[in-house]
Amino acid sequence: MENPFDDVYFMKKALQEAEIAFDKGEIPVGALIVIDNRIIARAHNLTELLNDVTAHAEMQAITAAANFLGGKYLINCTLYVTLEPCQMCAGALYWSQINRVVYGARDPERGCIALNTKLHPKTVMVGGVLEDESAQLLKRFFIEKRNLN
Amino acid sequence: MENPFDDVYFMKKALQEAEIAFDKGEIPVGALIVIDNRIIARAHNLTELLNDVTAHAEMQAITAAANFLGGKYLINCTLYVTLEPCQMCAGALYWSQINRVVYGARDPERGCIALNTKLHPKTVMVGGVLEDESAQLLKRFFIEKRNLN
Repeated sequence: MENPFDDVYFMKKALQEAEIAFDKGEIPVGALIVIDNRIIARAHNLTELLNDVTAHAEMQAITAAANFLGGKYLINCTLYVTLEPCQMCAGALYWSQINRVVYGARDPERGCIALNTKLHPKTVMVGGVLEDESAQLLKRFFIEKRNLN
Repeated sequence: MENPFDDVYFMKKALQEAEIAFDKGEIPVGALIVIDNRIIARAHNLTELLNDVTAHAEMQAITAAANFLGGKYLINCTLYVTLEPCQMCAGALYWSQINRVVYGARDPERGCIALNTKLHPKTVMVGGVLEDESAQLLKRFFIEKRNLN
């Protein structure tokens, strides 16, 4: 039987968050945090609206999930994010001791893999889930942005 | 003539923030952000109180300074922090394009230098300002913590 709660299912939900960011004129990245197949945090990039470089989707999701759990460690949690985390977000994930990180599009320039950010030994990272959809949304954003300027 | 607004002057103020963290039972790290010799953000570590791994002193200072300036880039600003920034905070500083980062104690295990976190090309980093005072405060915190348990 098909598992309705697989990585693709949750990444689709993260993509919905990215689309909300898109509609607000933000670089479209969405994230959510799941524990036992339950979504406990949803967030999208808000760096422009909040005038704050720290307002990446992942950072907000980490804060919200810890708030929900009443503890700062995200044990047994999975983060879904439409774009490979940057150094800042991977650094925050290190501190959170999160169990799994699943991302969509790769970021070979500013992503944590190329920049070799250290993850917590407890954390497993999986990439490329709905990679094309996530990358297409980002591409569409930057094309529209360029045409507006 | 002596400059009253040198790095030691501002690091002393950052140390005062670290002492406030100490009194709250937080790992004692303090930070401030300065522009044109004017302090525009003060913060101290609040990870325990807020149950949030992202609540490092530097992260809060970056958010507060951007809020004060009305823009997310911390051009012409200097961050003073009593402990070498971690990957997360150095990653946030990368996005902020801050001009200077001055830190006190070194963190050879989890600091951004050993972990090779990428800084923005516009950012100059200087370490070891009031290093002993910052390190002593941290040491005292961990000794007291150990004795309580």
